Amino acid sequence: MTQNALVRRLNAQDTDFASQLDQLLSWESVSDDEVNQRVLDIIDQVRQRGDAALVDYTRQFDALEVQDFSELILPRERLELALTQIQPEQRHALEIAAERVRSYHEHQRQESWRYTEADGTVLGQQVTPLDRAGLYVPGGKATYPSSVLMNAIPAKVAGVREVVMVVPTPRGEINEMVLAAAAIAGVDRVFTIGGAQAVAALAYGTESVPAVDKVVGPGNIYVATAKRHVFGKVGIDMIAGPSEILVICDGQTDPDWIAMDLLSQAEHDEDAQSILLSPDAQFLDKVAASLERLLPSLEREDIARVSMTERGALILVRDLEQAVEVANRIAPEHLELSVANPDAMLPKIRHAGAIFMGRYTAEALGDYCAGPNHVLPTSGTARFSSPLGVYDFQKRSSIIYCTPQGASELGKVASVLARGESLTAHARSAELRIINDK
Amino acid sequence: MTQNALVRRLNAQDTDFASQLDQLLSWESVSDDEVNQRVLDIIDQVRQRGDAALVDYTRQFDALEVQDFSELILPRERLELALTQIQPEQRHALEIAAERVRSYHEHQRQESWRYTEADGTVLGQQVTPLDRAGLYVPGGKATYPSSVLMNAIPAKVAGVREVVMVVPTPRGEINEMVLAAAAIAGVDRVFTIGGAQAVAALAYGTESVPAVDKVVGPGNIYVATAKRHVFGKVGIDMIAGPSEILVICDGQTDPDWIAMDLLSQAEHDEDAQSILLSPDAQFLDKVAASLERLLPSLEREDIARVSMTERGALILVRDLEQAVEVANRIAPEHLELSVANPDAMLPKIRHAGAIFMGRYTAEALGDYCAGPNHVLPTSGTARFSSPLGVYDFQKRSSIIYCTPQGASELGKVASVLARGESLTAHARSAELRIINDK
Repeated sequence: MTQNALVRRLNAQDTDFASQLDQLLSWESVSDDEVNQRVLDIIDQVRQRGDAALVDYTRQFDALEVQDFSELILPRERLELALTQIQPEQRHALEIAAERVRSYHEHQRQESWRYTEADGTVLGQQVTPLDRAGLYVPGGKATYPSSVLMNAIPAKVAGVREVVMVVPTPRGEINEMVLAAAAIAGVDRVFTIGGAQAVAALAYGTESVPAVDKVVGPGNIYVATAKRHVFGKVGIDMIAGPSEILVICDGQTDPDWIAMDLLSQAEHDEDAQSILLSPDAQFLDKVAASLERLLPSLEREDIARVSMTERGALILVRDLEQAVEVANRIAPEHLELSVANPDAMLPKIRHAGAIFMGRYTAEALGDYCAGPNHVLPTSGTARFSSPLGVYDFQKRSSIIYCTPQGASELGKVASVLARGESLTAHARSAELRIINDK
Repeated sequence: MTQNALVRRLNAQDTDFASQLDQLLSWESVSDDEVNQRVLDIIDQVRQRGDAALVDYTRQFDALEVQDFSELILPRERLELALTQIQPEQRHALEIAAERVRSYHEHQRQESWRYTEADGTVLGQQVTPLDRAGLYVPGGKATYPSSVLMNAIPAKVAGVREVVMVVPTPRGEINEMVLAAAAIAGVDRVFTIGGAQAVAALAYGTESVPAVDKVVGPGNIYVATAKRHVFGKVGIDMIAGPSEILVICDGQTDPDWIAMDLLSQAEHDEDAQSILLSPDAQFLDKVAASLERLLPSLEREDIARVSMTERGALILVRDLEQAVEVANRIAPEHLELSVANPDAMLPKIRHAGAIFMGRYTAEALGDYCAGPNHVLPTSGTARFSSPLGVYDFQKRSSIIYCTPQGASELGKVASVLARGESLTAHARSAELRIINDK
């Protein structure tokens, strides 16, 4: 490894590679005691004082001179107005993205099913949407209209009756693109509140904010901590860590393309992580050179530089097979298969949030408009969780409908098992339905 | 309401019914600071000291004189042996139940899908099983073999490679039915450890216990608190509250049947909740009389009596339509539609864990052998969550595979949106793939 190199270089065939990799990946979110206590106090205040607490916190945290909660309600007309405030090409891009996201997500909708057994007993599953979903959208500089589309559209496709959005407007700053995205996505109600207090309001409801069944969307440590605390009262989506990309390249893609793909993650956040795996050492050199050359041309150069230096890595692997092993170990949020035959590699990928296949599929296309969701499991949680989807806004009820004969037969089995567990009332409830063949 | 009645009587047409209902349903789980601190210490010890910590805690909490972790491993042969230790009719009942549970859950398996757009771009979703699942089974008196079937079989149907079970054996007590159920369900490895230390071992792994991707199964407050703390490192299932049943009856079912169904929930736990809704006041009187008469005949009379008195209710409704409204407000874990035409009522039910249709479908059948899972959302969480299922052991990866033409078109849209968010590297990563039509 060159001294002073921008990005660290590792070799997957080193004997201590496993521990080097563990160290590279290690990241733990910290909700310290102070943050926890602040958040618990805020939740408590919102539960007790409702709208009044929201007004107070918004004055305090968002430096907004509001007197009454009615000033924190954005009517639907204000969203429609935003559509005329943005540039026509932006509106067009948002509409194309929304249409593609909707069309992809319609494939995820789950339907009810049932089947009938020989004795007439019916078993099945009824699938229903949540009544109401809450969508948290961060305010200020890190405001992403794409995030509004990605969170609101799956809820609408699922059939959620009412999607309620909260977005803080610190010092009165309103992002017109965000409101336009909300209009296009079909968001039903918008409140200009944020932070832990907005999460508390969505979970418990106030005089003006309706209680929702699930809270989704990204946010800072206060928002994430509040979501953790209201989990159980309402559903929540995953609590996201920093964004990451893993690129597997056979060495035949333009190194500038790969370098820019790595930088597109790095520019998100100083904690973001970009890793490249390739069996071609010279290719790694070329990408390193591209990174050095391209980095200074970025608007967010400083952030991307810290991310690449602190958390990035270019890793030499024995072959593409070893690259797949490392990818499964990492379970990355975004995985680019920049190789000649990605279809052959795909079945071996066991864990990844989203898989970008071939040299042309830049990860950035998935962030905005390819169709699949950009809310993805981070920090290795792709081992057990999925992209945000329509299924997150639907739930299932089991259906059991026994005929007298079916209940009688099942009753005999249930009776034996219930008595084995010493649950007499269970046994007798079943036995009462046993038909006595005399 | 009669003074000294066993169960309270409410009327849904009372003006203050909404607040009476809120009070009836109110229940919050409490992990107090002391439990939290104990659990955090235990997790820390297991992470640092591995097997040695598990041996120490097992000696301390389970009064088991073990010297070495190897004594806490149950080999597969021990499970097979259990099949010969239980009564043949018990084994037969477990096998029938397992077969029905497996057959139902096979309907839940989700398949990968993809579709191709006009320009050749492929979008889809790859569905894969978790690598490894951990199943917590409580020990001692409240040990339920049915619970082993309900948790392990969906994992196996999903294709999970290895199902690891933990079950404490306090003072060496082993439940042969539980081991037999594990053998039948195809559990791969069993460790006789329990409590927060077993959850920590599953989440982080030790020298002997492999780290899993998701921990499921019921447990006491220490187990539930530990699951909450390891959430994020691994997946967990819902943290269950006390079991509940809501019965809607038109008054035409045998009151003894309904009373026994209510008692079958009440006998679980003093905090369990049994509620009956009927538009027929005289029927409510009859059920009240049946309850008084049947209760003394139960093995678990004391528990059921506390549950019925403290948390039970017989509620008079205006008509069946109002009953449905109240049911949707409660979002019960178990819902019995003991009415003439349950199929007409079903589409109006928006929230319930499992729905038992008609007069013959006793809830107890669902607990053991009807086929659907008995791990269900409690305490109103059916508003946003589902029964445990195969889908809990599968996860999805988005698939995007753009043709050069597709990447070029999508790149134009992504570029506009990325620049709107000031993410230059995102924009340029997309722009590099735009085909320059000259």
